[in-house]
Amino acid sequence: MKVQIVSIGDEVVSGVVPDTNASYLSLRLEELGAEVIGHRAVRDRLSDAVEALRAAAEAADVVVVTGGLGPTPDDITREAACELLGVEPVRNERALELLTEFFRQRGRTPSQNNLRQTMLPSRTELLANHSGTACGFVARSAEARLFFLPGVPAEMASMFREEVAPRLRELIGESAVATRLISLMGVPESEVSARLEDVMIRGSNPEVGTLAKTGFIQVRIVARAERMQQAEDRVREVVEKVRERFGRQVASETGEEPHQVVARMLIERGRTLAVAESCTGGLIADMLTGVPGISAALLEALVCYGNASKVNRLRVPAEQIEAHGAVSAEVAAAMASGVRETAGADIGLSVTGIAGPSGGVPAAPGRKAKPVGLVYLALADENGIVTMERVFPGDRAQVRRRAALAALDGVRLRLSEPRDG
Amino acid sequence: MKVQIVSIGDEVVSGVVPDTNASYLSLRLEELGAEVIGHRAVRDRLSDAVEALRAAAEAADVVVVTGGLGPTPDDITREAACELLGVEPVRNERALELLTEFFRQRGRTPSQNNLRQTMLPSRTELLANHSGTACGFVARSAEARLFFLPGVPAEMASMFREEVAPRLRELIGESAVATRLISLMGVPESEVSARLEDVMIRGSNPEVGTLAKTGFIQVRIVARAERMQQAEDRVREVVEKVRERFGRQVASETGEEPHQVVARMLIERGRTLAVAESCTGGLIADMLTGVPGISAALLEALVCYGNASKVNRLRVPAEQIEAHGAVSAEVAAAMASGVRETAGADIGLSVTGIAGPSGGVPAAPGRKAKPVGLVYLALADENGIVTMERVFPGDRAQVRRRAALAALDGVRLRLSEPRDG
Repeated sequence: MKVQIVSIGDEVVSGVVPDTNASYLSLRLEELGAEVIGHRAVRDRLSDAVEALRAAAEAADVVVVTGGLGPTPDDITREAACELLGVEPVRNERALELLTEFFRQRGRTPSQNNLRQTMLPSRTELLANHSGTACGFVARSAEARLFFLPGVPAEMASMFREEVAPRLRELIGESAVATRLISLMGVPESEVSARLEDVMIRGSNPEVGTLAKTGFIQVRIVARAERMQQAEDRVREVVEKVRERFGRQVASETGEEPHQVVARMLIERGRTLAVAESCTGGLIADMLTGVPGISAALLEALVCYGNASKVNRLRVPAEQIEAHGAVSAEVAAAMASGVRETAGADIGLSVTGIAGPSGGVPAAPGRKAKPVGLVYLALADENGIVTMERVFPGDRAQVRRRAALAALDGVRLRLSEPRDG
Repeated sequence: MKVQIVSIGDEVVSGVVPDTNASYLSLRLEELGAEVIGHRAVRDRLSDAVEALRAAAEAADVVVVTGGLGPTPDDITREAACELLGVEPVRNERALELLTEFFRQRGRTPSQNNLRQTMLPSRTELLANHSGTACGFVARSAEARLFFLPGVPAEMASMFREEVAPRLRELIGESAVATRLISLMGVPESEVSARLEDVMIRGSNPEVGTLAKTGFIQVRIVARAERMQQAEDRVREVVEKVRERFGRQVASETGEEPHQVVARMLIERGRTLAVAESCTGGLIADMLTGVPGISAALLEALVCYGNASKVNRLRVPAEQIEAHGAVSAEVAAAMASGVRETAGADIGLSVTGIAGPSGGVPAAPGRKAKPVGLVYLALADENGIVTMERVFPGDRAQVRRRAALAALDGVRLRLSEPRDG
């Protein structure tokens, strides 16, 4: 099944937002066994949109369209669909019901502009939107099936998952594509690809590629076969090789991101965590609390930016900060054990460092340099305290993210060790 | 001048990397006064590439192509260009010189594969690459000028800046484009476009569009004129209207995001903040600490996920949690004043709510329902405590983000009031 992706929106064409919807959809579509043949983005201009839809429908079996379903007069995708199909826009009663209910739940009523959103091509199938007001729909032209989704990434993604993927799965049938996403931590991308050179051959089956995320590397394996069992076997062979070669650096074999792995492990093992963050400034807490159910494991997180906060909340001795500086192994250790004790958690985790862009300290007689990117991590549990010194490359956001992931990886490695006693 | 952008590469079409080259180029091209009419991405397949180049050359005056200029047999852009132009590939002597010099400086010699990179369409103009081996070039078809650039973002960007932009500037001449990005908070997109209907007229000059972000709305104004002064005057007229109509809902007129605005205001006014987050779980802290220099203003943030943390760290009375539940106006207020006092900050900010996907509580006799998305926000300062109840739509991530931005907006509004005394 050939699929063309079309994005409609000035914000994409003018460069204000990168077209992340297209890459999201491509990844999901290829996982379903479809072949994405291209992306196209056009402005919110009726003639451009109609032309793009027509060309896409001629080239592909399925067209996935995003954007232009909002409430404003700029939003011309509904009209473009009508023109392509040669039908009139009509009030979709089911869409009206859903929209009215959406507003009712929020104690409001839809505006005239919002009502525009329920004027869809006649003879279409509605795609429900549970998190916004833009109605999606499916239509059939002479050549192709067209799926119309909203442009807001979160709404687009949930509509694709809930409404589009099941329909495509039915159309594609027993296509056998097995995919696997492995997350590796603590190893650079060039090393990953060097150590997987024998399986990363272009056009081979399975196809193996790497994807550098900030703070970890993903290895993506896609295998095609006549039957699913065969495809899965092919994937499994590569997974075995990755496991053999990278051992404990394999954080996940199921596409979970590192923070999701740690959250799941904590919950499954019934262990509690408390976090003290300085330079990561809430990022560790934010990542963990993004995982539903984490409240059972994460007792609290403290962003102790100021020294007073470290002393008062975590009982870090003021003399230690005085003697070694807030960015030091000693203070990281005191923060980790302090937050563990004061929060009554099984594990205390801490980060202190220099995220930049300024704040680096040059070397002086009797004192080591403290460059931007220098980070101390510490983990305290019933076995004691472990600290680690790292220097992370990149800008402020990258240093923070790398530091947060390295800290979480410490928890992962600790939790994967056999328990004492 | 109409410009079409074409990206050639499997990695873009399969979704492994988002097409950030296209958005980079669009922003730069519009700054030069060109009108980008669309983006297109195709696979590393000769027939697809030729077809995409042909369609682009027909639709636009200038085509900017990225990707497919590397040393491997997959890299088919040079061949596609020859086919489009109806010419043969020939060794470009200047390209060979540059390539040899590139390798000589690194103590190496070009491989056979690298030499492929110097086989360009006859009668082209070379675009030098100072940071890689892929040669760029300009070609003229019957309909358009085509610029071919490498796909590696850093090489593409420096070649655009150094080689392409000067040529385009000469072609476009004295064009002046002024742009402005305004962030509005606390008002839905449909209302923004209804109240700006008179200036949001398609194809008008200035062009005004809205962009819905999770938690706030951006208004983008682009004006064209003969001279820069005129273009800027046109932008200013629209800015005045936005200001008149939205007043304090204008969070920024310079493209700053809301959290950046709040961070800057706190720093400029010398005010200190302490934050107690429950359902936002560190997101407020993460957003604020992403801004350099915030350590002067943000004393600490506490992610008090468990009730014990609220009681012990923030002195929230346990009876209050018992009587009203952790998600209540009373507890939000106690958290805000608690964190303000215990941290010794000027302002205490708190959030408690139900981010979902589960955790909602139905109504019962004598008790209101507490649906997913229900959030209480509180702000404590020297004037007392203000609390707010909101129900946010969307999934867990969206509820958290909307709640965090609403809380920050409370701080923004408070800081923009004239100070007492």
